[in-house]
Amino acid sequence: MKKIINDASAVVDQMLDGLAYIHGDLVERLDGFDSIIRKSPKTGRVALVSGGGSGHEPAHAGFVGEGMLSAAVCGAVFTSPTPDQILEAIKAADEGAGVFLIIKNYSGDIMNFEMAQELAEMEGIEVASVVVDDDIAVEDSLYTQGRRGVAGTIFVHKILGHAARAGKSLAEIKALADELVPELSTLGLALSGATVPEVGKPGFVLSDDEIEYGIGIHGEPGYRREKMQTSKVLAQELTEKLLASFEAREGKFALLINGMGATPLMEQYIFAKDVAGFLEQAGLQVAYKKLGNYMTSIDMAGLSLTLLKIKDEAWLTALNSPVTTIAW
Amino acid sequence: MKKIINDASAVVDQMLDGLAYIHGDLVERLDGFDSIIRKSPKTGRVALVSGGGSGHEPAHAGFVGEGMLSAAVCGAVFTSPTPDQILEAIKAADEGAGVFLIIKNYSGDIMNFEMAQELAEMEGIEVASVVVDDDIAVEDSLYTQGRRGVAGTIFVHKILGHAARAGKSLAEIKALADELVPELSTLGLALSGATVPEVGKPGFVLSDDEIEYGIGIHGEPGYRREKMQTSKVLAQELTEKLLASFEAREGKFALLINGMGATPLMEQYIFAKDVAGFLEQAGLQVAYKKLGNYMTSIDMAGLSLTLLKIKDEAWLTALNSPVTTIAW
Repeated sequence: MKKIINDASAVVDQMLDGLAYIHGDLVERLDGFDSIIRKSPKTGRVALVSGGGSGHEPAHAGFVGEGMLSAAVCGAVFTSPTPDQILEAIKAADEGAGVFLIIKNYSGDIMNFEMAQELAEMEGIEVASVVVDDDIAVEDSLYTQGRRGVAGTIFVHKILGHAARAGKSLAEIKALADELVPELSTLGLALSGATVPEVGKPGFVLSDDEIEYGIGIHGEPGYRREKMQTSKVLAQELTEKLLASFEAREGKFALLINGMGATPLMEQYIFAKDVAGFLEQAGLQVAYKKLGNYMTSIDMAGLSLTLLKIKDEAWLTALNSPVTTIAW
Repeated sequence: MKKIINDASAVVDQMLDGLAYIHGDLVERLDGFDSIIRKSPKTGRVALVSGGGSGHEPAHAGFVGEGMLSAAVCGAVFTSPTPDQILEAIKAADEGAGVFLIIKNYSGDIMNFEMAQELAEMEGIEVASVVVDDDIAVEDSLYTQGRRGVAGTIFVHKILGHAARAGKSLAEIKALADELVPELSTLGLALSGATVPEVGKPGFVLSDDEIEYGIGIHGEPGYRREKMQTSKVLAQELTEKLLASFEAREGKFALLINGMGATPLMEQYIFAKDVAGFLEQAGLQVAYKKLGNYMTSIDMAGLSLTLLKIKDEAWLTALNSPVTTIAW
């Protein structure tokens, strides 16, 4: 393992100090906790809190800011944050109108966020939540019952963030989230495994000419390993499977191509061109497009493709609205 | 070589199509050329044109947009664009007030940009230019006489972009550029080499426990190879050398930590925390901070550290002004 770190057991702590140093105009570290909260003044709106294991940077701290999240709770690498840590973030984020939790579908996250929710409610804070499960690769996985929550989560942050900024109530945000999540599908592939600093070697190894489809953002097994293919073949595989996950192809869609960490933008853009060709062939109307490293898996090489069916024109407005964050 | 591409000889062409597809609201591809130009209406201001070899994404196309570059000329990977290609970008970008070229210091780039400048002047377009040479690692290099031009170039794009948007004349922008570039110092290090698709293997190889200080963004040799160190030791080496390159440490500085492509944000932030410590010890006043993958070297693991001495408060205003680009 060759990494620019000091101490494998202190990576999250030191990373958050560095993040708060660089982006001190926007966010701060919650004193004594591994959480990042926004600095903008509280105005009595619903607060959005998300998070999970670290190692997916810029997710989720990069989406804290005006118009998106109020706080991000950062667990150890690939490990759920603890209930008391989540509770403190809920309390710090609360503006008096309730707190909404955006949880990726991993058993540890669900257990700990739900426990924090109960603790917060006991302290008189109204809390609601949604579980994002956009990864269509496999049913059930190493750390998950049902589908995993992956890159599509950032669209949930953005659209709910817009609603919260507009002053929607906790009940309205919950209803919006429940409508949004089922319209979201993601599928990824990996060229290499990620190395968790405390482990010191990749979670899985692919040979020099091998890829794996459907890999999770913690290296959970996908659905097929095969020889490396051209970008066009990879794009066809992911696009066809994703399209098949939607009952209807009419209407508008939002597209996200997400790099896993070590894949250069050059490759992501080449892949985007190929995806564009297949979506055009399918007659899909792509009304919003985004590309880059948003939900990474440390130093994994690979990418994912997300489609969101736009059921309501307001979702597009929300995606396009300017925000003040580190990474959107 | 395992890359998400179709044809190693077509990577730039296909990447630019993908980029224009994803960011079609902001930029377009110059018809028939490997250049990206902004879509915002022409208003008679000085146009800024930059570029160079591809492989440094998001530089330079990611900085095309309102408030920064008018156009980016994209050569083959790690290869200067041709004079006719640069000429066409100059002609397309021109708004009638002259065109200013921002050139990184590589012999090929200088020769070809200067030839394009002469051709444009023969067609009646007023052109001026600056050569950025911020890399303090070595004097003279594989492709360079003098110091190389590296990540600090994006500060030049930003500050000159602000001046151009404010309606400054070509002569004023030239004077500002000549004042700015000498205040800019960068130093980098690599943990791995970059693989040019047409070559198919890394430009240099470091063993599993080895790093190289002062490496160039095309893998040009640095000034020392040694065993891998902690982030703190790496930060101390780069910070001390950079600080020594400035005659005076009074006044304000702008800081850029730039990832080379394959280095996760986690490591960049840990490094940032360590740099912050050394800068504080040195009593340096850091008035602007930026971190991320801005001037990459394809899939190289590594990073660079840039300091800009703020000689004029207006430079800070320029760095902080909002822009509409893909990647700033």
